[in-house]
Amino acid sequence: MSILVVGSVALDDIETPFGKAKEVLGGSAVYIATACSYFLSPIRLVGVVGGDYPQQAIDFLNNRGVDLEGLQVIEGGKTFRWSGKYHYDLNNRDTLSLNLNVFENFNPVIPESYKKTKYVCLGNIDPTLQKQVLEQVEKPEFVVGDTMNFWIETKRKELLNVIPMFDAFILNDSEARLLANEPNLLRAARKIREMGVKILIIKKGEHGALLFHDETVFSAPAYPLENIFDPTGAGDTFAAGFTAWIAKNDDTSDLNLKKAVIYGSTMASFCVEKVSLDGLRDLSYLKIQDRFRAFKQLSQFED
Amino acid sequence: MSILVVGSVALDDIETPFGKAKEVLGGSAVYIATACSYFLSPIRLVGVVGGDYPQQAIDFLNNRGVDLEGLQVIEGGKTFRWSGKYHYDLNNRDTLSLNLNVFENFNPVIPESYKKTKYVCLGNIDPTLQKQVLEQVEKPEFVVGDTMNFWIETKRKELLNVIPMFDAFILNDSEARLLANEPNLLRAARKIREMGVKILIIKKGEHGALLFHDETVFSAPAYPLENIFDPTGAGDTFAAGFTAWIAKNDDTSDLNLKKAVIYGSTMASFCVEKVSLDGLRDLSYLKIQDRFRAFKQLSQFED
Repeated sequence: MSILVVGSVALDDIETPFGKAKEVLGGSAVYIATACSYFLSPIRLVGVVGGDYPQQAIDFLNNRGVDLEGLQVIEGGKTFRWSGKYHYDLNNRDTLSLNLNVFENFNPVIPESYKKTKYVCLGNIDPTLQKQVLEQVEKPEFVVGDTMNFWIETKRKELLNVIPMFDAFILNDSEARLLANEPNLLRAARKIREMGVKILIIKKGEHGALLFHDETVFSAPAYPLENIFDPTGAGDTFAAGFTAWIAKNDDTSDLNLKKAVIYGSTMASFCVEKVSLDGLRDLSYLKIQDRFRAFKQLSQFED
Repeated sequence: MSILVVGSVALDDIETPFGKAKEVLGGSAVYIATACSYFLSPIRLVGVVGGDYPQQAIDFLNNRGVDLEGLQVIEGGKTFRWSGKYHYDLNNRDTLSLNLNVFENFNPVIPESYKKTKYVCLGNIDPTLQKQVLEQVEKPEFVVGDTMNFWIETKRKELLNVIPMFDAFILNDSEARLLANEPNLLRAARKIREMGVKILIIKKGEHGALLFHDETVFSAPAYPLENIFDPTGAGDTFAAGFTAWIAKNDDTSDLNLKKAVIYGSTMASFCVEKVSLDGLRDLSYLKIQDRFRAFKQLSQFED
């Protein structure tokens, strides 16, 4: 089984209370592809970078088994750069600077060899582009879409247009409240499902995540971490773990969706333990399964 | 098995976005005793009221099997009154007025017939009084203590003095951060456990609760409610469900502690569905077990 990943490819400057990192790997497609690569291969990436994108990054993704045929390299262009600073409690961040560069005119072109990919994970790019991607692939079996407050605020109509094309829609709690214009998270979830969402996942950061599907409501805990180093990419790696688990088992049953949410939480917990992608560099499928089992210890109780 | 409950007995004026209630039953001892009464009897209450405390309230507690020998009635005195207003999102409230009245000089006297009670649940009263209570009872088997930010801020030394006398200490997330002076909840939990706390429970409101004991960390979800009507008493009923389940089974094993946390969450979920104590008036042990099972549905997943 393979997964098509479409999203941003960026170089980040990240400032946390614990330190600074300059020009480190970032972007939703890179986080998603890397996290997915521990579950199955090939992972097919679609994105755009400039000629300044480091060869080291290309090598890293190649080594992780990520197919880069869909990575457009605009020679003479500059890669998307984001610079952000996290506050003391790591729950809030300020964007210090944002240079879209080649990402500004990103036009995702799905290579022929990618078009039959059964699983699709769309990072939080412009919903218009998400739709363009879905119009190019041939009957994917399962599509996971992410978004962010920026698109809810600026491309609401386009977002509402693409949401029903997703099989699973992932957003965080504040985005859910914003999209539904409703402070109660459960009522917000109901409203969003009425927008045509089959499977809805609301991430609550350090408070875990909620899954809604048919009559099922599932509450996943967050992994209790004393040291959260850098939350960048947590949402992307959550989407990755979720999608990859479903793809690996080719199983969208309720039982498996719940496990997929736990795998999403597992990957996010590894991601935030180190800066940038570093938490995803030296993982193994065994380590991932160990943490999955720790989630079970954390939340299961006897009848 | 019986439970000794010590706390405030109050008449509340509550304002929520959904309406107002005047002179309704309130106070931690009343919430705790009522919630406990669905699990076992007798529940032994120690508190103080004025001559104005309504006979109806006395009758209600009597009917619920609550032993009121320890309820001091100060004729000519007035019952503790609290008036509060909840904001739009129900997570924050303002105290509009607070008249301690007879509660100001509350001196908990444990009747002879109560002194051998094996289980003790101490509502969030002055830690000095909590200690006085524990000095009067004879070797209780299990003591659960609650507190609140007011005592952390004004009676820190006294609180630190009584905490090691509890078997289980319950507080909410903002109180835990305040007590430990630490924003990361996990690190805050570690610091609080170093204060001599054997079993620590941190309530996170709509995000559930965390249990810490020896090497065990357990994360309980909150019950997903679309309609939260009045959060007053949620913390008290959580402590009640937790204590009552342990007392009912006379079992403090890790497995049973986890279930007790779920019973605490269960009782809190009933409490917030109606105003004042109304969510606790027409319960049954069967309804409680049904919701416990719903918690299982909500949070369990397959290997």
